[in-house]
Amino acid sequence: MTSQKTAINPTREQDFAQWYQEVISVADLAEHSAVRGCMIIKPWGYALWENIQKSLDKMIKETGHQNVYFPLLIPLSFLEKEAKHVEGFAKECAVVTHHRLESNGKGGLMPSPDAQLAEPMIIRPTSETIIGQAMSKWVQSYNDLPILINQWCNVMRWEMRTRLFIRTSEFLWQEGHTAHETQDEAVNETLMMLDVYEKLAQDYLAIPVIKGEKTPSERFPGAVDTYCIEAMMQDGKALQAGTSHFLGQNFSSAYDIKCMNRQQQMTHVFTTSWGSSTRLIGALIMTHSDDDGLVLPPRIAPEQIIIIPVVMKEEDRKLIEEYCQSLAQDLRKIACFDESIRVGIDKTARRAGEKFWGAVKKGIPVRIEVGKREIENDALSLSRRDKPAKEKTTQNRQTLLEKMSALLVEIQQQLFQRALDFQQAHTRRVTTLAELKAVFSGDENARNEFVLAHFDPSAENEAAILPLLKELKITTRCLPFGYQDEEGVCIFSGNKTCHQVILARAY
Amino acid sequence: MTSQKTAINPTREQDFAQWYQEVISVADLAEHSAVRGCMIIKPWGYALWENIQKSLDKMIKETGHQNVYFPLLIPLSFLEKEAKHVEGFAKECAVVTHHRLESNGKGGLMPSPDAQLAEPMIIRPTSETIIGQAMSKWVQSYNDLPILINQWCNVMRWEMRTRLFIRTSEFLWQEGHTAHETQDEAVNETLMMLDVYEKLAQDYLAIPVIKGEKTPSERFPGAVDTYCIEAMMQDGKALQAGTSHFLGQNFSSAYDIKCMNRQQQMTHVFTTSWGSSTRLIGALIMTHSDDDGLVLPPRIAPEQIIIIPVVMKEEDRKLIEEYCQSLAQDLRKIACFDESIRVGIDKTARRAGEKFWGAVKKGIPVRIEVGKREIENDALSLSRRDKPAKEKTTQNRQTLLEKMSALLVEIQQQLFQRALDFQQAHTRRVTTLAELKAVFSGDENARNEFVLAHFDPSAENEAAILPLLKELKITTRCLPFGYQDEEGVCIFSGNKTCHQVILARAY
Repeated sequence: MTSQKTAINPTREQDFAQWYQEVISVADLAEHSAVRGCMIIKPWGYALWENIQKSLDKMIKETGHQNVYFPLLIPLSFLEKEAKHVEGFAKECAVVTHHRLESNGKGGLMPSPDAQLAEPMIIRPTSETIIGQAMSKWVQSYNDLPILINQWCNVMRWEMRTRLFIRTSEFLWQEGHTAHETQDEAVNETLMMLDVYEKLAQDYLAIPVIKGEKTPSERFPGAVDTYCIEAMMQDGKALQAGTSHFLGQNFSSAYDIKCMNRQQQMTHVFTTSWGSSTRLIGALIMTHSDDDGLVLPPRIAPEQIIIIPVVMKEEDRKLIEEYCQSLAQDLRKIACFDESIRVGIDKTARRAGEKFWGAVKKGIPVRIEVGKREIENDALSLSRRDKPAKEKTTQNRQTLLEKMSALLVEIQQQLFQRALDFQQAHTRRVTTLAELKAVFSGDENARNEFVLAHFDPSAENEAAILPLLKELKITTRCLPFGYQDEEGVCIFSGNKTCHQVILARAY
Repeated sequence: MTSQKTAINPTREQDFAQWYQEVISVADLAEHSAVRGCMIIKPWGYALWENIQKSLDKMIKETGHQNVYFPLLIPLSFLEKEAKHVEGFAKECAVVTHHRLESNGKGGLMPSPDAQLAEPMIIRPTSETIIGQAMSKWVQSYNDLPILINQWCNVMRWEMRTRLFIRTSEFLWQEGHTAHETQDEAVNETLMMLDVYEKLAQDYLAIPVIKGEKTPSERFPGAVDTYCIEAMMQDGKALQAGTSHFLGQNFSSAYDIKCMNRQQQMTHVFTTSWGSSTRLIGALIMTHSDDDGLVLPPRIAPEQIIIIPVVMKEEDRKLIEEYCQSLAQDLRKIACFDESIRVGIDKTARRAGEKFWGAVKKGIPVRIEVGKREIENDALSLSRRDKPAKEKTTQNRQTLLEKMSALLVEIQQQLFQRALDFQQAHTRRVTTLAELKAVFSGDENARNEFVLAHFDPSAENEAAILPLLKELKITTRCLPFGYQDEEGVCIFSGNKTCHQVILARAY
C-alpha cells in the first residue's frame, strides 16, 4: 500500500470515469467539439481507427463482401415502414427540414422559410431502411442473391449523455447489409460476421469477449435475433463491442425485397446487418490502459516502437541521430503480424524524460532509448509499456533486432491474457436472487462484476423482471454461447431452464 | 463513315451527356438514390474510390499530414463569422433544426415541436469554420505550428441540377487544413498540395491537367488565392479536378487563430485548405471511356486483368478452371506500380461472349481468354481495353507473364498520351474577341474547346466581362502556370498584360 506517483490523476481506483477522460486527454486521442455530443478525433486516435478499419476491412472482404456508399439522409417515409425500427430510432435523430439559409435581419442567419423540404429527412442512425429500398430494386430472382455489401461511414443518434468514443451523437462505423435466398444462409452469415468481430476484438485489439445472443428486450429494433460480443472493462462493467443481426423477413417485407426462388415462388428474402464502431477505441482504452496512460496492443498501435534519442551534449547529436535513423531502418525491415514493424523516432526538442513519459502516455508498446553511452557500449535500453514504466532491460543491437518480432507478439499475448484473467476473476456464478442483489448492492461506480446465472429467456419472463433489473442498474448482456445446455433453475422465475445469461452493469 | 455497332448507345458523338449516364450504368458504378441529388456508389465505383483514396492518402501522409475527423454538423454561428464564406455556402446547405421525431397523428412522423434546436446547424459543405474554431484553441505559440491535418468524409451542398459523380448534393472527399507561422510557408504548402493533386491526376488517373490560379470571381469563398488543376473532357469541356487555397489570414482572423511568433508578437496565423472528391471518378470516365463503355487506367483499376474461362464442353471445366486459377496465382506474384498485379477470374455462369463484353464495359485493362485449345496449344488470347475490343493477340504463358508488368505500364502511358494529345488538339490560341465568340458560338453540347488568350486578371476587368462570359456560357478556368510572362494584349480590355487565361465551358 505504498503511495506511488502515477502519470494519470485520478487513478482507475479513485475515479474510473475521470481517469478515462484523462487517458484520452494525455494521449491526445480526441476531444469534445463545440458541437453538442460530437467529438474531434485527433491524429493519434484516428490512426488507431485507421488500423482497426484496415484489419476489419480485410476480413470483411475476405468473407466475400464489397464496399459501397449510400446517402447520408433518409426520408421520413422510409423510416416509417418498419414499426419497431422507427420506435427504436425516431426518438434520437437529427432532422433536416430546410435546404437554404437566409439573413435573419439581425446580422445572423436562419433557415429560409421558402426552402422548407416537402418531406423532412433524418441523418442516418443506421441504413437498413435506405439500403432495403435499393435492394428491392436490385433483387428479381435468386440469381441476384446473395447481396453482400458493407459501408464505412458516419452515423448520428442524438444522445443526451455523451462520453468520448463510447457514446457520442455522431460516430464512425461500418455497417454490413446482406440479403439471402434462405433463412439458413442468412443465419450463417449473421454468425460468421459475429466470428469476424470476435477475431477483431481478440486477435487484434487483445480484448477477450463473450459471444452470445441478446435477450428479446435488448434486440436491435426490427431484428429476429441479435448476436453480440461483450467485453469487460477494468471497472467490471460490460461494453458491447460489435453486433450482428438476423433480420428474418422483417425488413424485406417492409421494403418489399422479394424474388423468384428456386421453387418458382415469389418470396421475401432474408436479410442481416452487422456493425462495429469507434466505440471499439473506448473498449480498447478501458481494457488495457493503466494509471500511467494509454496501453496499446502492438498489432494495432500506430507506432509499435518509439526510439528516443538522448542527447546530453550537442556535439553528440549527429552521431546519435544517425544511429537512431539506421536502427529504425533495420527495425522496419523486420516483419511482425505479417507487416513491417512500425517505428517512430521522437525528433521533438523535448527533454529525454518528457519524451519517455510522452511515449508511455501514448501507449507505444516498446521504447528504446539511445544515447552516446548506449551506442559506444552496444547496450541499448529497452522498456515495455506492459511492464512498470521504469523497468528497463539492456540489449545489444543484434539481439534486439533478432528478438523484436517475438517480443511484440509476446506483448500482444500478455495483454490479452491479462484481460482474460481479469474478466474470469470478475465473473461470478450466481444461483439465487439474493446473491444477485448482493453483488449489485454497491455503488455503480465501484468495482462491478459479471454474473452468470440460469435464466428463462422467454419474453414474458424478461418483461416481468425488467423493473428489478432497472433497480439494480443492470441489464442482460447476452445468453453466452457454450452455456446453453446444462439444466438449472432460473434465478428469477424458478422455472427449469437450460439457458444461462450474463448480467452486468454496462456502458 | 461505316456504321459500327457499339456497346453504348448513344455514342459520345450522338449525345455525350446520355452516353456518360450509360457508361456508369453498364459498368455498374453508381445510381441515383431515392434521396434527391444523392447517389448510391456501387461496388465497382466504390472500389475505384478506394484506390484513389489509397494513392492520395499515401501522398498526403508522405508530405507530413495526419488524418483526423471533425463533426458533421456546423452551428450557424460558426458559419456566420467569415462574410464571403457564408455568402458562398448559405444558399445551398442542408439545415438541421430538430433532434427528435414524433407521431403526426396520421400514422406518420414529424419533427417534434418540443425538440427544436436552440441553434440550427448545417451539414458541413466544407469544414474551414469548425476546424478554424478548434485551431484557435490548439495554437498558442509558433511551437504549435505548423498544423497539418486532413480528413476523409462526406459533405453536402444542396444542388438543384445533379449529375452522378460530377455534381451531387452529397459527395465524398478529402479536405486538408493547415496553419502556418508565415505567409511564405502557407503559400508553399498550397502549391505543394496542388502538385500532389497534379501527380494523382496524371500519374494515377492518367488525366492530363493544366495547373493554374483561379481568377478573382472563381476563388473559393474566403480565399486569398485559389489554385486548381483543370482537365479536359472528351466533349471539350473543362472539369476542375482539385483545388488548393491560400486563405491568408481571413479565416484565422474570423476564428481568432493566433500565436506568439518568433518576434514575440501576437499574430494571426496563415491557413490553407485543399480538397479533391468523388468528382475525380466523373473526370476519369469522361477522359478515357469510349463507345464500348468504361476505360480504366491500370494503376487505379480494381482489377487490372480479368481471366475469362471459355468452357465449350462440360468435361473440360475442371481443367480450364484449374488452369485459370494457376495463371491468376502466377500473375499475382508479379509486381506492377509497386504492388501485386490485381487479377480477377470471371466465375459467373454467363456465356463467354457476355463475360467478354462485361469486362469491356467495366473497363478492365487486360482480358485473357482461356479455353481448352488455348491451354493445349499454350497460346493464350489477350486483348486490351485501350485497343478495339476484338483486336486480340496470342501469347504463350511464359511470354505473357514476362511481359505483363510492362504491358500494364504501357497501357497507362498510352491512355495518358492519348488524353494529352486530345487536350492539345482542342486548345486554341485566340487573340481577338471576335475569334473567341466564333469558338463559342455553337451549341453548348457540341464539341467544345479550350481557349488560351491574353487576359488582364484585375478584378475590375473580370467584373466587366462577366456578362459576356455568361452569354457565351464560358468561365475563366485558370491563369495557367508557365504562360504568365509573355506580353500581349488582353482580348477583352485591350490592356497590355503578361497574363494568359484558359476560357472554356465547364462542368
